[in-house]
Amino acid sequence: MNSLMSSIGNSTNIFWHDCAVGKTDRQKLLDQKGCLVWITGLSGSGKSTLACSLDRELYSRGKLSYILDGDNLRHGLNKNLGFSAEDRAENIRRVGEVGKLFADAGLICIASLISPYRKDRDACRAMLPDQRFIEVFMNMPLEVCEERDAKGLYKLARAGKIKGFTGIDDPYEPPLDSEIELKMVNGSCPTPSEMAGQVASYLGKNGLLRHG
Amino acid sequence: MNSLMSSIGNSTNIFWHDCAVGKTDRQKLLDQKGCLVWITGLSGSGKSTLACSLDRELYSRGKLSYILDGDNLRHGLNKNLGFSAEDRAENIRRVGEVGKLFADAGLICIASLISPYRKDRDACRAMLPDQRFIEVFMNMPLEVCEERDAKGLYKLARAGKIKGFTGIDDPYEPPLDSEIELKMVNGSCPTPSEMAGQVASYLGKNGLLRHG
Repeated sequence: MNSLMSSIGNSTNIFWHDCAVGKTDRQKLLDQKGCLVWITGLSGSGKSTLACSLDRELYSRGKLSYILDGDNLRHGLNKNLGFSAEDRAENIRRVGEVGKLFADAGLICIASLISPYRKDRDACRAMLPDQRFIEVFMNMPLEVCEERDAKGLYKLARAGKIKGFTGIDDPYEPPLDSEIELKMVNGSCPTPSEMAGQVASYLGKNGLLRHG
Repeated sequence: MNSLMSSIGNSTNIFWHDCAVGKTDRQKLLDQKGCLVWITGLSGSGKSTLACSLDRELYSRGKLSYILDGDNLRHGLNKNLGFSAEDRAENIRRVGEVGKLFADAGLICIASLISPYRKDRDACRAMLPDQRFIEVFMNMPLEVCEERDAKGLYKLARAGKIKGFTGIDDPYEPPLDSEIELKMVNGSCPTPSEMAGQVASYLGKNGLLRHG
């Protein structure tokens, strides 16, 4: 075990502890590589659906994945955050930091949250070097998302009952260089299993579904 | 996938997403049960040493564990927190929430942090029902910890250069009902592997090292 003194941010007299069992060992145990699949897109674009479908697909291949759902985390880790610009950024930062821990633990972590601003997503990307951050852009037209409106939120936003709703009165900044972009083909949306297959295939091609 | 509308804390219009792959499935894949081993004690009491030793012991048995080190997290997830009473409580809350996620993912999560106040530790315990929170109390005498002083912090605290240092000018509230208590025997400290063996043995006896 190594201890290294440092002073970062608000923290002073904080040591860094290194341990004998490392990321490589855990990856060997799991026969996969830890990474963070970051699913971004409008409300109703199918992020949670893809997350679940991908989770199932990976499980069927004997791989260990875990979903960090932006909504679910607001019940726990992020329950002291609201929807101000500052709180939204902190919300995303925390998900990125936790995703980084899961990736370090060797898991294929699947984060699913609107994450509308490029700056916030890129800050998370910067936390995971070596192609371990895989951005998946759910590029579905607003009309399609609004038409679905499974949660009834667009209706509320259009009625002015929710303010700062992404796509309505708050911007969504599309990724400029996402690893994967999912969109409609010939006017129809890909099925959940088609989307999951595409992401799993990307992970496989990039060597993330084996440890060596 | 189920969506359930709710309003909790600062969050409104937040849905809960449930997924097909559950904790039980992940536990089956790993052949273990997710839980949170919470190591508490004074600075220098051997928390990190035990965490590392336990991590190695579990790895040698083919089990997947992951250490959440209080100091290390202050470089990432908790880097925006200081050492005020409020920030310390939030620091511990976040570690508890993340530990809960790791346990849900099926891992044996090992949290190592002073966590001096009973109230904060009990709040974490409450997050993990069903005996999935295992409190390990490093019950080493202050004199022994101060004598070690591997980080030189006691010296700084005695010199008044660090304020509110646990054991010196801030209290440590010992657990009243920890699952495991580690202490000196006949005037000598247990070795790291003896301590790890004791914890691993507890986990085994309580069925946490197999999935069924």
